[in-house]
Amino acid sequence: MKGKFIVIEGGDGAGKDTQIELLKKDFPNFVYTRDPGGTELGSELRSILQYRQGLSKPAEMLIFLASRAQLVNEVVQPNLEKGLNVVCNRFEPSTFAYQIYGRERLELKEFVTQASRFARGECIPDLVVLLDVPPDVALKRVATRDEKPTRFEQEKIDFHNRVRQGYLESVKEFPKVEIIDASRSIEDVYKDVKAAVSAIL
Amino acid sequence: MKGKFIVIEGGDGAGKDTQIELLKKDFPNFVYTRDPGGTELGSELRSILQYRQGLSKPAEMLIFLASRAQLVNEVVQPNLEKGLNVVCNRFEPSTFAYQIYGRERLELKEFVTQASRFARGECIPDLVVLLDVPPDVALKRVATRDEKPTRFEQEKIDFHNRVRQGYLESVKEFPKVEIIDASRSIEDVYKDVKAAVSAIL
Repeated sequence: MKGKFIVIEGGDGAGKDTQIELLKKDFPNFVYTRDPGGTELGSELRSILQYRQGLSKPAEMLIFLASRAQLVNEVVQPNLEKGLNVVCNRFEPSTFAYQIYGRERLELKEFVTQASRFARGECIPDLVVLLDVPPDVALKRVATRDEKPTRFEQEKIDFHNRVRQGYLESVKEFPKVEIIDASRSIEDVYKDVKAAVSAIL
Repeated sequence: MKGKFIVIEGGDGAGKDTQIELLKKDFPNFVYTRDPGGTELGSELRSILQYRQGLSKPAEMLIFLASRAQLVNEVVQPNLEKGLNVVCNRFEPSTFAYQIYGRERLELKEFVTQASRFARGECIPDLVVLLDVPPDVALKRVATRDEKPTRFEQEKIDFHNRVRQGYLESVKEFPKVEIIDASRSIEDVYKDVKAAVSAIL
């Protein structure tokens, strides 16, 4: 039987990494990966996306999609076919939320949808868990981190508000979505995340 | 006045580098660049495209386009707007020739056309010079080079025959094209290249 493909989504500071660490303890046999990233190529592209100054907007979008295409081909699809469940930190909804809504390119929606399908092929998430949190709360979390803030984290609050709306709009397109209030405590959020994941197994 | 955008095209071993070196002597004030490549990002992506094993086909195409988007944005468009003439070693016709015809993905033609337009924006070549040469001749030239052969140069002769046909088909879409028999001597080919370039100035 084919494995399940579970995507954890949400803006910067929504708590994706933290929730995924908790999933790893409860579901140690799942395959965990991230988009962008997750492959040798993806890691290189991820670092370009996060820190490269002067990256043009079309190049940015195409690099996100290239990283995803490689991830699907090299990691997600082969593991699902082996019957393993795959959890991915971000995936297609992030493209819509950041590249269309965040970047205010609604006129590109149809093309981006097509391009994103080209990148992911037939690999559609069985479950999208959206960690929804107001950007002012999320960005306070990001500010306490030790890491260098990415180009996206440095964007203004308006950008992050558009990204949040973009997520809420674009997840409607996916077959199964769980929107979770991620402004609560880590434990409360995880209870809902675990329940959503358990429900599709 | 806006500068002219001149693209030198042709399969591996057609003589693009050699002809461009000659152009540099006669037109030293032009800006010379290459696709993929031509920017810091492009150089990194170019090296991935040429040598990375296990690169998936969709990732390959998207990386080509990302490199082009950055090149247009950072080098081609700004220089044309300054009134400088820009000569580019490969550009959009290569995407059609290699990714659609070479890779035998004719069903992707419409999407690739759209995606390629997204990458290049309004930046359409004023002149495409196609150095046309039978692949058996071209690959003999490649074999005498000292450099490590790229993933593309290592493809079989059938691939290169399809790429050649792809060039001849796809250049029809461009406003001004000069198809030059590049199986002749460097000097004879250059006479035609120089004449084509001079004619649009």
